Amino acid sequence: MVVHSATLAVNERLAAMRAAGQQVVHLGFGEAGLPVLPEIAEVLTAHAGRNGYGPVIGSPSARTAAAGYFARRGLKTDAAQIAFAPGSKPLLYALIAALPGDVVLPQPAWLTYAAQAALAGKHVIGVPAPAAAGGMPDPALLEETLREARKAGRRPGVLLLTLPDNPTGTMADRALVEQVCRIAENHDLAIISDEIYRDLCHRPQEAVSAASYVPDRTFVTNGLSKAMALGGWRIGFARFPVGPHGEDIRERVIGIASELWSSLAAPMQDVAAYVLDDPDSVMIQVAASRRLHERISLAVYGILTAAGAAVRKPNAAFYSYPDLECFRPALAARGVKGSDDLAEFLLDQYGIGVLSGAAFGDNPGAFRFRVATSLLYGETDEQRWTALSSDHPTELPWIAAALEQLKSGLTALRSL
Amino acid sequence: MVVHSATLAVNERLAAMRAAGQQVVHLGFGEAGLPVLPEIAEVLTAHAGRNGYGPVIGSPSARTAAAGYFARRGLKTDAAQIAFAPGSKPLLYALIAALPGDVVLPQPAWLTYAAQAALAGKHVIGVPAPAAAGGMPDPALLEETLREARKAGRRPGVLLLTLPDNPTGTMADRALVEQVCRIAENHDLAIISDEIYRDLCHRPQEAVSAASYVPDRTFVTNGLSKAMALGGWRIGFARFPVGPHGEDIRERVIGIASELWSSLAAPMQDVAAYVLDDPDSVMIQVAASRRLHERISLAVYGILTAAGAAVRKPNAAFYSYPDLECFRPALAARGVKGSDDLAEFLLDQYGIGVLSGAAFGDNPGAFRFRVATSLLYGETDEQRWTALSSDHPTELPWIAAALEQLKSGLTALRSL
Repeated sequence: MVVHSATLAVNERLAAMRAAGQQVVHLGFGEAGLPVLPEIAEVLTAHAGRNGYGPVIGSPSARTAAAGYFARRGLKTDAAQIAFAPGSKPLLYALIAALPGDVVLPQPAWLTYAAQAALAGKHVIGVPAPAAAGGMPDPALLEETLREARKAGRRPGVLLLTLPDNPTGTMADRALVEQVCRIAENHDLAIISDEIYRDLCHRPQEAVSAASYVPDRTFVTNGLSKAMALGGWRIGFARFPVGPHGEDIRERVIGIASELWSSLAAPMQDVAAYVLDDPDSVMIQVAASRRLHERISLAVYGILTAAGAAVRKPNAAFYSYPDLECFRPALAARGVKGSDDLAEFLLDQYGIGVLSGAAFGDNPGAFRFRVATSLLYGETDEQRWTALSSDHPTELPWIAAALEQLKSGLTALRSL
Repeated sequence: MVVHSATLAVNERLAAMRAAGQQVVHLGFGEAGLPVLPEIAEVLTAHAGRNGYGPVIGSPSARTAAAGYFARRGLKTDAAQIAFAPGSKPLLYALIAALPGDVVLPQPAWLTYAAQAALAGKHVIGVPAPAAAGGMPDPALLEETLREARKAGRRPGVLLLTLPDNPTGTMADRALVEQVCRIAENHDLAIISDEIYRDLCHRPQEAVSAASYVPDRTFVTNGLSKAMALGGWRIGFARFPVGPHGEDIRERVIGIASELWSSLAAPMQDVAAYVLDDPDSVMIQVAASRRLHERISLAVYGILTAAGAAVRKPNAAFYSYPDLECFRPALAARGVKGSDDLAEFLLDQYGIGVLSGAAFGDNPGAFRFRVATSLLYGETDEQRWTALSSDHPTELPWIAAALEQLKSGLTALRSL
């Protein structure tokens, strides 16, 4: 049985606590809490008359815009390589279901991949992420794991990468990504490269796609949920490789799409056509969002390290992934035995809402969790616009208060 | 492998032929070709700022409106029994996957059910529909089939009903629906009752829900694609039974939903909250649509019977399902051996685009096909509004021309 996605569940729980008047720092959910760009709302309005189903893979104009989006980011792309869907989740599922073999998954990883693999009847072969960054398997361990898996009768078929990564908020460096891609190639693995945080690398020039290294076997997914903060509009897209393998998998994905969801809502396709054309208004909004995410996630990183947590410095998106192992004796004395307990403890004691590392497939006994900073920017659109345009967003009262609550909670851990 | 849905595929093919300037009567696709009600477009516009994910099952306001929608149609319902999704397709899939056992399917049936059962790893146990109406199994054959299936080691678990039906355009009468529901109860089957055409019964008082008879085991799906002509907006919802069984399946469906699609797009949930409250503007639009669908589908029925086809008189939606068995010798002499050939022949020879009965799980050797009338109402919104408000829509030039092309094609069959 597939249970309610832990990220979505924690979001619903924290929202209910807040609605009940509790003072909760909501660090539990990867929703980009920023307002809709007015130009985009206007595009939705202008296309409200579009009520036909249209092609399963999306309209020619949306697919042409997506092809241009990739081309401007270094991946020559034809509109025929693109498919749209209501979010990247359904596309990830369809790719996992369509690509033969078991799923090789770096750990920790966004929890949906493993749940989708289970739904598709696939085994998950876990490989720890390297010390340098998340979202990818450690190269040496990957080789070893693939050998062991084959010996044990598994059929590793698909490697799932997240570039940049959720939950660690890191973009791996070029050489490391290439190394992992080459291993996948040598072992004849397809790659699903989830690049939904691509435009939120703190330094955009550091963004890397697996499709740059092994174009024939890489299936890229992306969407407007993160960089454009349109999670609730459910706009996702995929890029298929050129060639017979890519075309075969594309046909299979279209088959699944046609029976599971038909198409992305037509007015949302018009939104995608507008946004993916990279107009100035969009580029400016993404740049401002990126700066804000960077500033707040670095502020949180500072608080975490000052408190004694071991944590990799984020360089992308709005996440960090600390380890509170240093507090184990004091926490264990209060019944905290692993990451689920720890997340409960932080919420109950300090009103700090985070997501347990166990939810990401990490060792449940470890004291790790994911911190998402993207819901700190404000409760109202006015606050969020202010945060987006501020040169010192950490000093805005609502953000400063949340950071202070996080800091005082973590500080209190020292005197347990 | 799940192939591209035949309904969506024929739609894309016919659209391409028309774009290339060919004179095609598009009777192949069940898209309600009517314009968006301006009030609804305004609701979408007013909620364009809603970009959060929100609860997987949908917002409280949308679920409360859906509960009222069912209550006003005779099914007392609490908002907790409702879930929304991007179309009813994903909900149907999640229900098929979540409910234990194999799927018992009347034939002919909308092709997606069997494809979804295959995706969920389920067997399909086919039972022919009765002579009186489609969308349901013949009661006597259902009993017999269930016995035989059990003997053969199958585990029939879910009966899929379509009330009213696609492809036959019929709403079964009350007594027959109750009889089938009682058989399902006696055999401990759950029922999925796809009621997406419910508000398009030509005589609304004839609409019947399986949930009226076996409330504890009936899972109803519905959406705004047909009655409101919002197929391209992808708004679907489901009603779960009260009680532990309903709640257990609801949790499973939420689990699948959270990992496959997250939620229905937030602004679309606001549209659903508005529409499902049954405001006057919506009720008037649905009534006008219903009248138009009835008039055109009865006109098509008249043409079909005059041409010699055997066809059940439609009393719901915008479909009919004729049988051209009487032309078998002449058609066979031209290489037409079954329903796929027949659909190709009608398209090639007369520009009549229909969907082969084989696509609905019918005997591929039979000469049956589905005729959908819902794309005859006009190419432009202006034509469609004119059709909606016309007292004599069959006399509008664009509709008359399509009916004439159908008539002359079928007449030509006689002189083959």
